Amino acid sequence: MKTLADVFEHTLQDIYYAENAITKALPKVAKAATYAKLKKAAEDHLEETKGQIATLKKVFTSIGKKAEGEKCDAIEGLLKEADGIMKEASGTALDAGLLAACQAVEHYEIARYGSLREWAKVLGHDEAHKLLSEILDQEKATNNKLTNLAVTSVNKS
Amino acid sequence: MKTLADVFEHTLQDIYYAENAITKALPKVAKAATYAKLKKAAEDHLEETKGQIATLKKVFTSIGKKAEGEKCDAIEGLLKEADGIMKEASGTALDAGLLAACQAVEHYEIARYGSLREWAKVLGHDEAHKLLSEILDQEKATNNKLTNLAVTSVNKS
Repeated sequence: MKTLADVFEHTLQDIYYAENAITKALPKVAKAATYAKLKKAAEDHLEETKGQIATLKKVFTSIGKKAEGEKCDAIEGLLKEADGIMKEASGTALDAGLLAACQAVEHYEIARYGSLREWAKVLGHDEAHKLLSEILDQEKATNNKLTNLAVTSVNKS
Repeated sequence: MKTLADVFEHTLQDIYYAENAITKALPKVAKAATYAKLKKAAEDHLEETKGQIATLKKVFTSIGKKAEGEKCDAIEGLLKEADGIMKEASGTALDAGLLAACQAVEHYEIARYGSLREWAKVLGHDEAHKLLSEILDQEKATNNKLTNLAVTSVNKS
């Protein structure tokens, strides 16, 4: 990788891999969570993530590339952390820990889409910039929803 | 782990491990970056991170525990991603990619300290809540600094 276009494409493949990995992880989170609102949040975010994958495909198309993923070490680590919580925790620790692990994943996505949409703008990929900004806004909204859930309920159960 | 106190202590050990891992990674980032302001940001953040480790030791003391780390899969993955950029990229791709990888690490920390300080509050650990909030504010400020650097310079070089 030498140019901004190279790192943009690489990171797009990276987040495409990550979103696909997240669709495999979310049903496990929904199953493990005991708190009903957390379970529901995981189910809702699974549907949203499927929509984001469809949007990412449009981003690839808009820059004349084929949608493909490249192994993303960061999401592997983040999801391994969530797996650890599911294996080692129960009760309040499970719900609070899982919710926090989901927020760490959301923050990873916020960081990635924040960089990607800025790069798209600089590279003159207007359609990609618009689409990536839409996903970024969704991830921020999901994170805010999880923060609200943590502060108002899970941590106090 | 069963209680909120359990997951609080576990996550504290997790971020203590992560901050120590970051102090080992930042000198590599400072060395690899070609853009002077990014190099300087990595050097400055190394000093700040050492201060955060000292603050985390105070957090452990405030809850009557010994400061110790526990392997954190998430930071391992995030730093592996940064290593990949250093190995595979050069020129603009290197600086832009490294800066973005640093922001992903900052976002991980923002997520963790956000959960930790809320848990500290619920658990009645007032001193820990104050100290963790201080670190959270520093991480947010660092991330804003990096965003500014990306938007104003690195992405356009």
